[in-house]
Amino acid sequence: MHSHNTNTLLQTLQLLYSITIRNSLRYVRIKKEDYFNACSKKKKMQWYFVAVLLTVLTSSQGILTTLSQSNGKYKYDYATIPFLAEVFKLAVSSFFLWRECKKSPLPKMTTEWRTVILYPIPSIIYLIHNNVQFATLTYVDTSTYQIMGNLKIVTTGILFRLFLGRKLSTLQWMAIVLLAVGTTTSQVRGCGEASCDSLFSAPIQGYMLGVLSACLSALAGIYTEFLMKKNNDSLYWQNIQLYTFGTIFNMARLALDDFRGGFENGPWWQRIFNGYTITTWMVVLNLGSTGLLVSWLMKHADNIVKVYSTSMAMLLTMIISIFLFSFKPTLQLFLGIIICMMSLHMYFAPSNMLLDMPVTVKPDEEREKLIEVSVDRRTHS
Amino acid sequence: MHSHNTNTLLQTLQLLYSITIRNSLRYVRIKKEDYFNACSKKKKMQWYFVAVLLTVLTSSQGILTTLSQSNGKYKYDYATIPFLAEVFKLAVSSFFLWRECKKSPLPKMTTEWRTVILYPIPSIIYLIHNNVQFATLTYVDTSTYQIMGNLKIVTTGILFRLFLGRKLSTLQWMAIVLLAVGTTTSQVRGCGEASCDSLFSAPIQGYMLGVLSACLSALAGIYTEFLMKKNNDSLYWQNIQLYTFGTIFNMARLALDDFRGGFENGPWWQRIFNGYTITTWMVVLNLGSTGLLVSWLMKHADNIVKVYSTSMAMLLTMIISIFLFSFKPTLQLFLGIIICMMSLHMYFAPSNMLLDMPVTVKPDEEREKLIEVSVDRRTHS
Repeated sequence: MHSHNTNTLLQTLQLLYSITIRNSLRYVRIKKEDYFNACSKKKKMQWYFVAVLLTVLTSSQGILTTLSQSNGKYKYDYATIPFLAEVFKLAVSSFFLWRECKKSPLPKMTTEWRTVILYPIPSIIYLIHNNVQFATLTYVDTSTYQIMGNLKIVTTGILFRLFLGRKLSTLQWMAIVLLAVGTTTSQVRGCGEASCDSLFSAPIQGYMLGVLSACLSALAGIYTEFLMKKNNDSLYWQNIQLYTFGTIFNMARLALDDFRGGFENGPWWQRIFNGYTITTWMVVLNLGSTGLLVSWLMKHADNIVKVYSTSMAMLLTMIISIFLFSFKPTLQLFLGIIICMMSLHMYFAPSNMLLDMPVTVKPDEEREKLIEVSVDRRTHS
Repeated sequence: MHSHNTNTLLQTLQLLYSITIRNSLRYVRIKKEDYFNACSKKKKMQWYFVAVLLTVLTSSQGILTTLSQSNGKYKYDYATIPFLAEVFKLAVSSFFLWRECKKSPLPKMTTEWRTVILYPIPSIIYLIHNNVQFATLTYVDTSTYQIMGNLKIVTTGILFRLFLGRKLSTLQWMAIVLLAVGTTTSQVRGCGEASCDSLFSAPIQGYMLGVLSACLSALAGIYTEFLMKKNNDSLYWQNIQLYTFGTIFNMARLALDDFRGGFENGPWWQRIFNGYTITTWMVVLNLGSTGLLVSWLMKHADNIVKVYSTSMAMLLTMIISIFLFSFKPTLQLFLGIIICMMSLHMYFAPSNMLLDMPVTVKPDEEREKLIEVSVDRRTHS
């Protein structure tokens, strides 16, 4: 059963890979100039603001989701959340595109089928990813899965280099590895925790599927960046294509759940808002907003900025949990925060700031001056 | 009782501080040139070799000490180990000085009392340090004390800057902090360990004494470096002075132990080799050898090299313990090793290696060429 699934997965992956590689090579050749010209200082300030906002919203996502539970259980159908978030993103993007259309230089919109056909691919990758995730969890426990999830940071760096052709310095590679190490450190199971299984005791298939899962997750991000930067289309038009397919896939998922459940509770559209509270709506709006921000970052910044945002958000969530849910602060959380901060500075700080030493008079020069003076004296005496 | 001890300590510290500051300022003014000229490539290769040897020997020190126990207890008096090691170092240094004296350019030896009087100071600092360590352990448990010990890495960096006037780049400071974070990470108490007290539960005095202990330990190292680099005296002559005082202080300690015990087992010189095995002798020789290597590094390299050596040794000991003492490998050990390796590379790798990107043709240049070509065509048509 498992091996059959894996084969189908591998074939789909090969197909996706060949499409992506071919397109990305074209992109690298044509789009590099545009990319370099776009890296202005003003844009960097905008990245920074959006990245901080994304960190705060991603962090509140975890906290709101916990708050929306009652007695540790969801009273609503969790699958409705991403569906409604997609609808929200679609609505917001449509509104902004409509506003853009009223202005004089009409927004650029490519409607060629050859371009449109690329937009369902991220949704397909996420679909495969969900299945791989499910398969991984049959081999490893949730805690080990969470720790392996940090591999995604490193695989994003690798795919960023391979598919988008973006070059990183040794220091930036080290920063990416340190970010993964830092987030992992903060998650190390502490003294006195309930589950105490060794991390190294799962079967080998579990680890392999974990790596595959990290690759797929990174691939979805990298592919979205490729799509968004592929042409100069309006961001909102690109979003509409992305979210239309997202809405369809999520709707299909709800329908499939109904079908599997034998329509016991009626079709999904009749019970979609069952158990919804104000907090649930906030979860939806929050998830939609983070999606829109990620989309903006993919167009105007890159995947690495996104990875830093979400990693920092994870740490922020843990810090807030200390106060909100009386989560016990651990030494490893403290260490993880220091490591991630160092990594952030290593990746983004300008190199002269990292390496420049305070200006000092070179000792050799000073000595030469002294020798000159003594020579002068000798000649004059 | 405690506050009285602390007052005496503080007064002694103030005295030491004023002596050291005054001398180090003089050193900075005079010796900077010599230092810069000495940093040749050949010397760097020597540093590297000595540092690796020190790592291996320091690591075997921990393992040999464990092996020298029987049923988890010492059958010999542990205080005799440092005493015999000092005697060994004194003998080796005397032998080498004697050999140097037979050659034609006689080794440089300063015998001024003003210089000689500085050599007992490291022993005095270690003596104070031992007392502070003892006081700290009345407030915190051994495990917390061990974790606080990593602070020594950071305090060494700070005193290195303050007393020896050596400038470090931002990246090097980050590397030092990461080294401390890495060694701490490897020591995080894992799941299912016996002692499970929170690290943050000790009284405030415990932490303050821990910081003081880290400062004293760093001060001893920095002061020794200052002594060794202060003048161009033969290393062996400097060693002889250092180890003579070391031998005296260790002898005094043995005598004091006898006095406290009321000479129950007779004077120390009668039972010095009681319970000694071949492993015990190896512990002595190993401790002596590491002392000689540290001395060499203080003269020809610096404290930061030493700190890296001993930190790497700690990790190496943990790795060897996995095989020798079936110590359970943990995720935090693995993470700690990665962090320390990154730190090592950040501190010592040349900056162009860290920042240089592979050479690429600049897109702007390419475009300019294209524009020129098209202009040429237009003129000729």
